[in-house]
Amino acid sequence: MLPETSVAREAFRFLPSSPCFTLERLGNTRESLIHQLRAGDPRALARVISAVENRTPGWSELLKTLFPHTGHARILGMTGAPGAGKSTLVDQLARHYRKEDRTVGIIAVDPTSPYTGGAILGDRIRMQEHFCDPGIYIRSMATRGSLGGLARATADVTTVLDASGRDLIMIETVGVGQDEIDVVRVADITVVILVPGMGDDVQTIKAGIMEIADIFVINKSDREGAERVEREIRALQSLATRSDRWTPPIVKTIASEGKGIAELAAAIANYESYLQKENLALKRSVQNWQERLIEMLRDAFLEKARAQMSDGEMLRYAAEIAEHRRDPYTLIEQIVENSEPM
Amino acid sequence: MLPETSVAREAFRFLPSSPCFTLERLGNTRESLIHQLRAGDPRALARVISAVENRTPGWSELLKTLFPHTGHARILGMTGAPGAGKSTLVDQLARHYRKEDRTVGIIAVDPTSPYTGGAILGDRIRMQEHFCDPGIYIRSMATRGSLGGLARATADVTTVLDASGRDLIMIETVGVGQDEIDVVRVADITVVILVPGMGDDVQTIKAGIMEIADIFVINKSDREGAERVEREIRALQSLATRSDRWTPPIVKTIASEGKGIAELAAAIANYESYLQKENLALKRSVQNWQERLIEMLRDAFLEKARAQMSDGEMLRYAAEIAEHRRDPYTLIEQIVENSEPM
Repeated sequence: MLPETSVAREAFRFLPSSPCFTLERLGNTRESLIHQLRAGDPRALARVISAVENRTPGWSELLKTLFPHTGHARILGMTGAPGAGKSTLVDQLARHYRKEDRTVGIIAVDPTSPYTGGAILGDRIRMQEHFCDPGIYIRSMATRGSLGGLARATADVTTVLDASGRDLIMIETVGVGQDEIDVVRVADITVVILVPGMGDDVQTIKAGIMEIADIFVINKSDREGAERVEREIRALQSLATRSDRWTPPIVKTIASEGKGIAELAAAIANYESYLQKENLALKRSVQNWQERLIEMLRDAFLEKARAQMSDGEMLRYAAEIAEHRRDPYTLIEQIVENSEPM
Repeated sequence: MLPETSVAREAFRFLPSSPCFTLERLGNTRESLIHQLRAGDPRALARVISAVENRTPGWSELLKTLFPHTGHARILGMTGAPGAGKSTLVDQLARHYRKEDRTVGIIAVDPTSPYTGGAILGDRIRMQEHFCDPGIYIRSMATRGSLGGLARATADVTTVLDASGRDLIMIETVGVGQDEIDVVRVADITVVILVPGMGDDVQTIKAGIMEIADIFVINKSDREGAERVEREIRALQSLATRSDRWTPPIVKTIASEGKGIAELAAAIANYESYLQKENLALKRSVQNWQERLIEMLRDAFLEKARAQMSDGEMLRYAAEIAEHRRDPYTLIEQIVENSEPM
């Protein structure tokens, strides 16, 4: 009765599966694949990302090998409400950086479900535009791999893009839930994109992402209400001081006309200088890694746990609980303590 | 540099802590507390919910004891975009059920961060209105307890309310992210609330929650664009058939004027009959429990993992990773395999 894309199925997707599809079958040894990736080959990049995303056997060895090559890329998180014009803004910013001859990777986290097929379609349309420029690599990811899967997958793909030598990685996501906040945590710099006229309680959306914004963008700033959005941001900012004493600037853009893009790039560069000057970049990275380690531990233990239980057992337990013949709290305790549930 | 309410801190909140606040200090033995709860005492209800939410020592024993008493309540998930008028609709529906002398519990999952303090304020305002009616119990929950914490906490509070004998439990949440979809999974029946004029790509919001809707509500249906929203729902519905062959009806309401509430209650009753007739209620419950068991396992393993590592160790690992002196993938493998990281 629930759709095919239910969370349980998605969770299984990340578990060790039968090796129906191995790196060797791709016609590459791991060494040669990584060599090609590091040399900038976009096909090698796409293969490694797919292997990591799909948990193809050998994926963790790939990440282990790639990790020491990371740390070069500047990672931008770009988040905002649906309809804020994020894709257009990200594309314009990518174009700007390409003019400076910096290579760009874009990870578009698309909340559209398989129901409407939005992610794939959007990807194709956007890929086409940049088709001739190997300096821009765009990858769409759907939000269906839940249970922390999305944040983890995004972080892993960021690792691959970083190791491939991209100068800038932009992670584009809809900033409305905890998912997105987790995703953006991978970023060095977070840009929150707002738009005038989102309705009465745009506050509700803003509140959750206010805290993670290093830079605010008011896009479609020629629309009525832009001044009001700016006043609201300022009012919320006056309620609390950040521990790093940074006051996020507000940049007005009209992304569809390319207006304000240079100003946004300047604001990003300015915050980068601030991070360097105050020696905050490493501090932030340490904090992010503390949180990511917890997530990674959780996921790893879940995989271990699931590997110990067959689908049939899980179904039987669920049925017993649904019929109130078994209490789930005791069951979980028993499994975690590694004793046999009775 | 990140706010105080960072995910890691929230994760720690759920871990076994020093018993600074035990059930005994509340002046109740577990048995008498549960007896009072089952007799309908709202103070006992509030205490048990707090104990479960705050993971007060003894919380899991409480849930184990209460679980066999659950299964009576009908659980409604009410979800929709910010500004859709969910609270008003839920309040009106609660009023409707109270007229039929059915007792109601409301869990309002409020996405507003502590930054603006929305949850507490909203709770107080709403509590005041129903203050004289012990047949309505309202509990607000913030979305900050992430890492699955919110979905789990909501499910646990639902267990407590169910065991307390409430006829109906309404879980009200903002339907925009995976969090909310996880929260709503606890429900027997899911109502998705839309509103005209949400902007160009209300599609983005709808797509993710289309799949979980058993009933659609177009609230504020006197506004321009109501017909368009209805057409859009129908168009999306035409793309896929649900495996249970149910076509979610569309109910138009103006909650602020109490219009359409009886029709909504009738639509809910109608779907209930369908579930019973087709013997689908149990099937759905089994499916939900399969997914919840995975979440519970994950959370339990997270607690176990965290208990094995001191904050100091975690900080040291994070710093080594941030400086690229250690690769996180190997570290996690070592911890999960229970070998000593080097």
